[in-house]
This record gives sequence, structure tokens and C-alpha cells, in this order.
Amino acid sequence: MPLPAQVAVQEGKFPVTVSFTAGIEKKTKADTGRAARAVRRMLKRLAGRTGLFFTDNKIHIKSKSLETALRIRFKREGRLRLGEDETYSLMVTPEYIQLNAETDIGILRGLETLLQLVRADKEGYYFPAVMIEDRPRFVWRGLLIDSCRHFMPVEVIKRNLEGMAAVKMNVLHWHLTEDQGFRIECKTFPKLHQLGSDGLYYTQNQIRDIIAYAADRGIRVMPEFDIPGHSTSWLVGYPGLGSAPGPYTIEREYGIKDPTFNPTIKATYKFFNKFFKEMSALFIDEYFHIGGDENNGKHWDANPKIQAFKQKHNLKDNHALQAYFNKKILKILTKYKKKMVGWDEIFQPELPNTIVIQSWRGKKALREAAKKGYNSILSNGYYIDLAQPTDFHYLNDPIPEDSNLTPEEKKRILGGEATMWAELISPETIDSRIWPRTAAIAERFWSSAQVNDVDDMYRRLDIISFQLEELGLTHIKNQAMILRRLTNGKDTTALKVLVDVMEPLKLYARHHQGATYTFFSPLTRVVDAALPDAKKARIFRKQAAAFVKGNRTKEAAEVLIKDLKLWKENHQNLQPVIVNSPVLKEIETLSKDLAKIADIGLQAVEYILKGKKPGPGWIEENKKVLQDAKKPRGHAELMVVTAIEQLVNACNGDK
Amino acid sequence: MPLPAQVAVQEGKFPVTVSFTAGIEKKTKADTGRAARAVRRMLKRLAGRTGLFFTDNKIHIKSKSLETALRIRFKREGRLRLGEDETYSLMVTPEYIQLNAETDIGILRGLETLLQLVRADKEGYYFPAVMIEDRPRFVWRGLLIDSCRHFMPVEVIKRNLEGMAAVKMNVLHWHLTEDQGFRIECKTFPKLHQLGSDGLYYTQNQIRDIIAYAADRGIRVMPEFDIPGHSTSWLVGYPGLGSAPGPYTIEREYGIKDPTFNPTIKATYKFFNKFFKEMSALFIDEYFHIGGDENNGKHWDANPKIQAFKQKHNLKDNHALQAYFNKKILKILTKYKKKMVGWDEIFQPELPNTIVIQSWRGKKALREAAKKGYNSILSNGYYIDLAQPTDFHYLNDPIPEDSNLTPEEKKRILGGEATMWAELISPETIDSRIWPRTAAIAERFWSSAQVNDVDDMYRRLDIISFQLEELGLTHIKNQAMILRRLTNGKDTTALKVLVDVMEPLKLYARHHQGATYTFFSPLTRVVDAALPDAKKARIFRKQAAAFVKGNRTKEAAEVLIKDLKLWKENHQNLQPVIVNSPVLKEIETLSKDLAKIADIGLQAVEYILKGKKPGPGWIEENKKVLQDAKKPRGHAELMVVTAIEQLVNACNGDK
Repeated sequence: MPLPAQVAVQEGKFPVTVSFTAGIEKKTKADTGRAARAVRRMLKRLAGRTGLFFTDNKIHIKSKSLETALRIRFKREGRLRLGEDETYSLMVTPEYIQLNAETDIGILRGLETLLQLVRADKEGYYFPAVMIEDRPRFVWRGLLIDSCRHFMPVEVIKRNLEGMAAVKMNVLHWHLTEDQGFRIECKTFPKLHQLGSDGLYYTQNQIRDIIAYAADRGIRVMPEFDIPGHSTSWLVGYPGLGSAPGPYTIEREYGIKDPTFNPTIKATYKFFNKFFKEMSALFIDEYFHIGGDENNGKHWDANPKIQAFKQKHNLKDNHALQAYFNKKILKILTKYKKKMVGWDEIFQPELPNTIVIQSWRGKKALREAAKKGYNSILSNGYYIDLAQPTDFHYLNDPIPEDSNLTPEEKKRILGGEATMWAELISPETIDSRIWPRTAAIAERFWSSAQVNDVDDMYRRLDIISFQLEELGLTHIKNQAMILRRLTNGKDTTALKVLVDVMEPLKLYARHHQGATYTFFSPLTRVVDAALPDAKKARIFRKQAAAFVKGNRTKEAAEVLIKDLKLWKENHQNLQPVIVNSPVLKEIETLSKDLAKIADIGLQAVEYILKGKKPGPGWIEENKKVLQDAKKPRGHAELMVVTAIEQLVNACNGDK
Repeated sequence: MPLPAQVAVQEGKFPVTVSFTAGIEKKTKADTGRAARAVRRMLKRLAGRTGLFFTDNKIHIKSKSLETALRIRFKREGRLRLGEDETYSLMVTPEYIQLNAETDIGILRGLETLLQLVRADKEGYYFPAVMIEDRPRFVWRGLLIDSCRHFMPVEVIKRNLEGMAAVKMNVLHWHLTEDQGFRIECKTFPKLHQLGSDGLYYTQNQIRDIIAYAADRGIRVMPEFDIPGHSTSWLVGYPGLGSAPGPYTIEREYGIKDPTFNPTIKATYKFFNKFFKEMSALFIDEYFHIGGDENNGKHWDANPKIQAFKQKHNLKDNHALQAYFNKKILKILTKYKKKMVGWDEIFQPELPNTIVIQSWRGKKALREAAKKGYNSILSNGYYIDLAQPTDFHYLNDPIPEDSNLTPEEKKRILGGEATMWAELISPETIDSRIWPRTAAIAERFWSSAQVNDVDDMYRRLDIISFQLEELGLTHIKNQAMILRRLTNGKDTTALKVLVDVMEPLKLYARHHQGATYTFFSPLTRVVDAALPDAKKARIFRKQAAAFVKGNRTKEAAEVLIKDLKLWKENHQNLQPVIVNSPVLKEIETLSKDLAKIADIGLQAVEYILKGKKPGPGWIEENKKVLQDAKKPRGHAELMVVTAIEQLVNACNGDK
């Protein structure tokens, strides 16, 4: 995962033994450093999985033909630029493994494929003989990480870069400034990080380190400086640049805030000129993201000087004023040889089509931009912070079949980005919100549009998910840790049974549950242990639907009954744990409801098996219980209620 | 844990609610920054455990008396120097919590105690009313981390500093140079890190960051530059300073190696003069550790010029030559205002008693040093890399009751250090080798010698262990991850049952199992998932011993029978997993043996319960099986064999 463009399985296998060796054929002047480091990491992961003590750990670099087990050949160093060649071909024979590519970035992609091929039988580990030709469908395959709403330490970024590389993603879109924090050390304007970050920022050395780390994995790092709105933290240190008089303080709550740069004063552009001069040297990628979203214009409307400026310059509304601002910023970025990227809102006819539009509001804007000659990338449908199921993202194609775009226009859709906004995540939980769902999104960006079998995706997702753990990702292991803390070190079995059928509330619903999330709120509750796309619940829903639709055998029923019995009895096991852990109080009735609806489900299955119809009172009464069970508790919800509803309806003969 | 010097439990409790607040009384000019940051972290952990959304997250700093829930008062900033005041007093009343200390370092210690006091009942979370007066027994409470044999990234060091702070340790002894790697960026002699580290070194910025991070937690960072032996990696870049002609390559294997600095040439001291000048500015602690251990002298003996030098200077043996070297180094360190620390071997009468001896070979040396007027610290008995049980370390007192030292001499024993040597650990496993055992060692260093109840220690260790997870430590959660990888994502239940009664081989036995560990060897096998001091096995041994010694009730037997049955049936569950995971092959017979001896144990318990004696053939035959089960497999061993042996012996009437 992602599935390669062409795979031809062959006869035989290449066994992995302690005498496994690796080499790179060096015929050109290309530097083999990045490829060699990648092979070193690959050997480490291979040894880690197989437990083999390789006797030869050298990476052999020779100009002549290699005699190593793994033989690598590439023509030139890949550059970290949009559209760089990432193709590779991989041939596993019983005698050797040949990995070829135009660039060393292609080699990196091929090494990940190779690691996904490791198999085992009684004789030991092996690579199955295979011929693979592979190349990406889209050139822009990104993950946005928001380091602002919650700060994410260097190791969080690094381990997620590893995860990205494992699924062949190639852009880290790093959201570095926000109302809640300015996260970059800035030498020209040090008050930005000194006053705007609570001390939580990346030093320039750390940023350089991360960029190099990403580059070593064939990943570009595009910074986002969100302006003119979303800018409270900038204005704490430089209130004179704001549209309102100030003073400003770091924003602790979330949502759309009023503070905005003043686009009508020269000081603003002088500031950005110097600022982007410094940042252009630090962030080496060609693309700079300037945000541009969700500027509510309130401070502009409230400032008479800004109003006068608009009149004078014939700017009919705030959109026009923002376009004015964007044009000025574009000029600065162009001076420093950067290309401008922004959210939907920057797509205004006044701006040249050298800019790139990132669509968060919908695919319509994406198509429109493409039709008008703009390059664009899709994020709508990939908002992984919204706790939606994997298949929803997976089936969201950047170019749907009915897009009506010409081949030329299609080319302008560069790809897409999953966006990990950070209002409701901490370094402890971020990985479980990114992974494994983002692996499916990565496949959407890399593999053919025809690769869209959801069941097969979920099957492969399970495998890639635990393999991602070897990269240090915490998406699986941190759940058990949070549960231990929630039970105060007591047995977590019953809590796990409950959490397995719960999901965090979707979309923005967690913000509307009577508690205001702030920068300081704990993200350590049951809802934070619950996973988006809870596997157990998903499988139960599927099994229940199949049972209702026709497969009403005893075996099919028994599968359901086993789960339902477990849930029915779970609350009595969880109850004593809740008593000692007040933090669990908020999900007590949810746990009770699970027991109740499981009991209803058991009765329904029995009616169905016996071919008997329950009385109308039974249905009515239980539908009410099921309705109640749907209510969110603890900012989370039960994910098996609809399945049990289906069972209840089926008692009545419904399918 | 560690247990405070004085605790007086009072009536009542202070409830923790959303309106919890914290403040610092600022009456002097002392900077409140460190204390405020510590309170911020404390509030975060408190919110994390309780799930409470505190409404007031400000740290109130006032010169007048505070009205916050938590009220903090200290007189001055603590300096990070040996013997700095760390006392504190903590009073929890139903109305407020008062934490007082001489220094802010005392405040840090008190905040950790406070966090350990959190309790819960049906009404919610609370701090029980209590009066605590606390101070450390020893001034030097250290943990050595070896970043050389395996490199440990910055986050590994940081999370372990958090763990150290949680159990009130105050010295990170950072082992930074070794045969296998030179881990410091050195600007004066860049070939040290460029050629001696495989690119795995800490930049000076990272080192400064870690020192600041430690300082913020009241922890000194003492670097170790191990010379003149253990120095292969230095000599890769500067072979001219070696005692043999060279060239040198980074050592990949472990053990005592020959390469040694040449102590007879001026270039060596010129080098160290410049080197320590740079390092003295980087590492701000007053103490510098120069290692000095395990110099085998082979290269000295083989070098005629060195032999001639010894004769000329009347240095009767290599010890004398090393003392000569140490005196020269001491002079350099003194010039840069650093105090010299070294392992046992540097304790030679020629050196003044300003040096500090770290005893790794035994307590005898420690006492001897103290008697001769030298300060010393104990590490013998705290080698946590050797996989020994917690109680062994816990009962190892730096000043045993029979030490025969005068009070003056006792004072010279500054404390001790747990040593985490890194031959057999990786960033994935290091935490599980340090924690939770080191918490018990920390208690040995902090609490009174009279605090030595092993059962109570183990009870409290369980609690502190899962609490340490909130600091990012991976000692619990990584085991499940390693097991998932070992089973290739299959069910890990059976493997966990086996691992729960296994331990890694103790002392240096893992190096003598027919495989040579190198820098590249995988540390991802079953042995690496197994924990030192396996809890399940420890409890079984205790229960079996109690049963044998007299408590032969049916209930006591049933506890044993339950475990034995589980083990007896476990192999048939594990077998199909092993078939698909060749990496598990090495423990297959261990798993079989567990099933066999569990069956023997079941029979033995039955004989005992029935008061029947088995025939002599039964005993003989089974003793052989038990003998076989003791054999190490996969570099690990079963920890319940002796307990089952006891049961077998008890059938015969033995106790």
C-alpha cells in the first residue's frame, strides 16, 4: 500500500538469510549518500522484523556490476521539486533483487515496496519473485501537520515523516503560524516567537534538521504562514501591524478570530519583505503557503482608515482588499523565487495563474481553478481531524469520473493533502488521528483511480498499520496507555470493550458539547482513546447488515450473538472501574446504553432466527432506547446503534 | 516513591475541581521562571489524569499572600551544584495546599510528591490532607545513559530526564564517547564526530537544549569522555594520538578493546587542552567524568617508545602510566574549573582527593576511597543493563550498616548512579530497561536506609510505573508493539503468556550464546520484549514458596493451578503463530518446556493436596525435564522453573 501501477507475480522466492547483502551501482557522478542511508534504514527494519544478525552490514558501492543480494541502480540524484521523477522498477528473482530508478527518490519509493513484500513460511523469511513497475498518479501527495493549535515536538514531526515515506507521500505541509501560536524562531523579528509561542517554537536549527530529515526521505517541506487572518500570535509582538489598535494576546480558544494584518499600511509590506527574506533562506522548498483563509474582515470594517483606503483604491469589498494584499505578498515571494500557494479564498481573478489553490471547501473550486488555468490541490474530503471513516477519504478522488475536465485541465490538479488540524490532538494522540487512515489517502494519491475496492483496502490497511509502528509511530500503542491512565492502573479490559465500539464525535461536534476546548484542555479522556473508524464496530455493522439482508444462518447469527453478549455483560465489569476513576463518569451512561442495546440486539436476533415477530410494544419501546443510545456522551458516540436498529427492524420483516 | 522523610496524614481532603488554581509568592528577586514552568507542567499532568478543564490556567505570581488553591513559596533560585538545598515542606489542608522550600529545586521535588498524592473517590479527585517534610539522604542521585553503544535520539534523553525528575534524581551522567561512537559535535576537532559517529551525534545546539531541559527539572548533566581507553572512535579521525600506528575504524563489536590514547606524547595533551576548553564551555556542570576504566594496556606494551618513556619516567607499570596521564588531564580540567570524576581505576594514591571516584567494581573500593578522604559514588549493584531484579538493586545500600565508616567518612559517599549501558538496548527498549526499576534505586538514594520493605516497594513500584507513562516513557507500551511485530500482526495473547514468565539472560550471558552482538544486531526479538524482573513469574515464585512452606490450602493451590493450566495449554496456542513467524523459532522449545513443566507442577500440586508421595521414578524423570527447562533459549530464560522444582521437592516432603 499504495498498490503499484503494475505487479506481475513470478515463480519462486528470494530467501532472506543472515548473508543478505546490499549494494549500489555507481556509474555516474550522482551522490549515493541518500540512497545508501535509505538502504541502511531498510536493512535495520529488515533485521528488526526477521531477527536476523546480518553478517555483512556494509552498503557496497561499486562502479561495476554488483554481486550483492539487493542491487540498486539509479541515474541521477532526485531534486526535491514538484514533478520530480519517482518511478522505479523492482525485480525479485530467486537469485537476486534488482531495484532500478531514474532518481534516488525512485529508489526510496522502491525500497518501501520491497519492505512490504517480506513474507514468511516454515523455512524462513523471503521476498516472493515479482516484477513491479511503478509510478505515482499525482505529483503532490501531502500531509498537513498543524503545529500551532498544539505544539508538536521535533520527534512527532520526524516519526510522521517516516510514516509518510513508508506510504510514498512527498509533501509535508507544515502549518506553523496561527492565532494560537507562532512556531518559528525568527531572527529578524524575534518578538514573533518570543511573545507569540509560550516558548513552544522550533529553532531554526531544528527546522533545518527536519527539512534535511524529510529530504533524506524524498519529502518536500512546504511551510504555511497563515496571513492576513489567523494571525493573532504575530500581532502580540507587533501590534502596530494589526488592523485594530491592540494589544493582542495569544488566543487560547479555537475558531475564526478577528485579528488581521493591516493591508493598508506600508509597514506591513516592509515587515513581510524582511520576514520572507529570512524565511526564504530557511525553507528551501519552492512553494510557500500563505494561508489566506477565514479572514472575517471585522477588524477591517471597524477601522475607518482601512475603510477610507478601500474607497480610495476602489476596492469594493474585503475580498478585493485581501486580493490587493495577496498581490503585494505575491510580489515579495516572487522576488525571493518562491511560488505562492493558498487556500480557496486566495483564488481571485486578480491573481496570476502561477499561484496554486488548495481547496478545502469543495471540489467545485478545484475544477473551476483547473478550468481557469490554475494549478490546484485537493484537501476537501481529506480532513482527517474530523474523525471520519477511512473509506470516506479513500473514495474521495481528486478527479472524479464525472469531472468533465480536459486532459490538460486534469493535469492542473496536482494531487491532494490530508490535513491534520490540531485543535483536539496532542503529541500523544496525533498519530492515531493520522494513521492508519492516511495510508489509504496516500494510496488514493499514488495508485490508479481504478484501485478502489474498500474491503481490500481495509485488509491491507490492517497490515500496513502495525508495520508503521516500527517507525516509532504511536497510533496503536498509545491507546492502551491512555486506558491505563483512565483506569488509574486498574484492569482496562472492560473499558477497551467499550472503546472498541466508540468513536469521537465527527466534524466539529466536539466543540458543541457544553465545554469549551482551549489550548490547555486535557486530551486524555475516553474520547481521545477512541479511534476514528473503530474497526470492531465497522465489522459488526457489516455482519449485521449481511445477516439482515439474507444470510440468516445460525453461524452468521452466532458471530453477532458473541459480540452482543460481550457488550451486554460489559457494563457490570466497567462499573466498579468507573467508581474509582471519576474521569470515566462521563461515559457511564454510554456504557449502560451499550449493555441495553446489546440485550435488544440479542432479542432481535432470537426473533429473527425463530421467524417470530415481536409485539408492536416491544418495537416501540426499544426504538426509544436505541434513540437514546445515539446521544453523544463524553464527546463520543456508540457506533453499533444503527446496526442493532437494523436487527430490530428486521424482526418486523424489514430488510 | 521515593518515600518522603516525614509524612503525617491529617483529616480531610482538598478536592481537585475545574476551579483549581496555582500561584507563586514572589517576595525576593528570585526568578520564578523555572518554578512557573514546573507548575505549568504539573497542571497539565493533573488535567491529564483527571480530565478536568481548568477554567483558570494562569500561574498567579504575586508578592502578597496568595489565594490560589496551590500556594508556592521559595526563598531563592537553586543552583545546579552538588549539595544544593532540595528540601521542601508540603501541607495539604481542606482549604489550600502550601508548598514551601528554600530553593525552587525544592519546589520541583515537592510538586512531584504532590502529583503522587492524587486520589479519587465517588465524589471526584482530591489530595488527602497531609503534612510532609522531606529532604534527600544523598546529594548525588544519578542515572548514566550510554548514548554510544547505541545512539539515543534527543527525545529518548528528554523523556528519561522527565522520569528522573519524577523520582527526584538529580544527575544525568551522559556517556558520550566510546569505542563504538563519538557522539558530540566538536568544533575544534570536527573529525571526532564526522568520522567517529556514523553521523549519529548530538549537535552542540541539541546538547545545550538537553542541558537546559535538565536544568529546568533540577538535574545536573555530567558528561563522560572516556579516556585513555574506550577511545577507538576518537582515533578514527586522529590516529596520530593513538598508541598504535592505526588506521582505526569505528568498533562494531563490544567488550574491552585495545585502542588507547598515547599518554607519552605532547600532542595528546595539546589536543585535550583544546578539547576540554571547548567542552568546558558547552557542558556547564562543575564535574567532568573522564572514564579511565578498562584500559588493557596492550597497545602500550606493544609500543617501544611508550615502554622507553615508562622507564625514563620511572613508571613501574601501566597503572602508573595511566596515573601520569590522569594527573595531566586533571591539570587541564582544573584550569577550566572542572572537577574530575572517574571509575575505580583512577583511584591511585598519586591523585589528590579533589577527584571523585565512581565505584563500579565493588563497595570495598568505595569504602577505601572514603577512608582515604576521597568523595565517591556507588554504581556497583546498580548496573541496570544486567537484567537483575529490582529488589537486588533496592537492597544495595551505598552505606551498608556494617560499613564501619565514621560519620565524616560516610559524608564522603555522595550517593550513587544507576548505569544504563547500551550494548543490548535500542531507543525502543531502553525505557523498559531503565523503568520502573530505577524508581526503586531512586528511592534508595533519596529515602532513609530504613525504608527497605521489598513488598511495599513492589506495591508502590506498580503505581509509579504506569504514572511514568504520562511523561512519554515507553517502558510498558513498547512491549505490546514488539510482540505485534514478532507475530507479524497476528494475535499476541499466547506469546504474551510466555513472555510474562521469561527474562533476558542476566549479567553478561547474552554475549555468550553463540551469536556476536554488534552495533547492527536487531534488538527486536522475544528477549528484547521480555522484561527484567518479570512480575508474573515473581508473584508465582512467591505464591509457590508460600504454598510449599505451609499454606497448603485449596485456595492457595488454586491460584497456582490457574497459572499452571494456562501455561500447560499455552504452547498449543503459540505453535501456529511460530509457524508463521520464523523469528519466534528460537523460543519454540522454551515454550514447549513451559508446557511440560507446568504439567509437572500441576501433578505436584495434586500430590501435595492429596498428601500422596509420587514414586521415585516420577521425581527423577521430572527433575531432568526441569533441568532442561532451565537452559537459555533465544538469549532468555524461564523464570518459574525453580518454583516448580520446589513443588516437586515438596511432593517428597521437602520444604
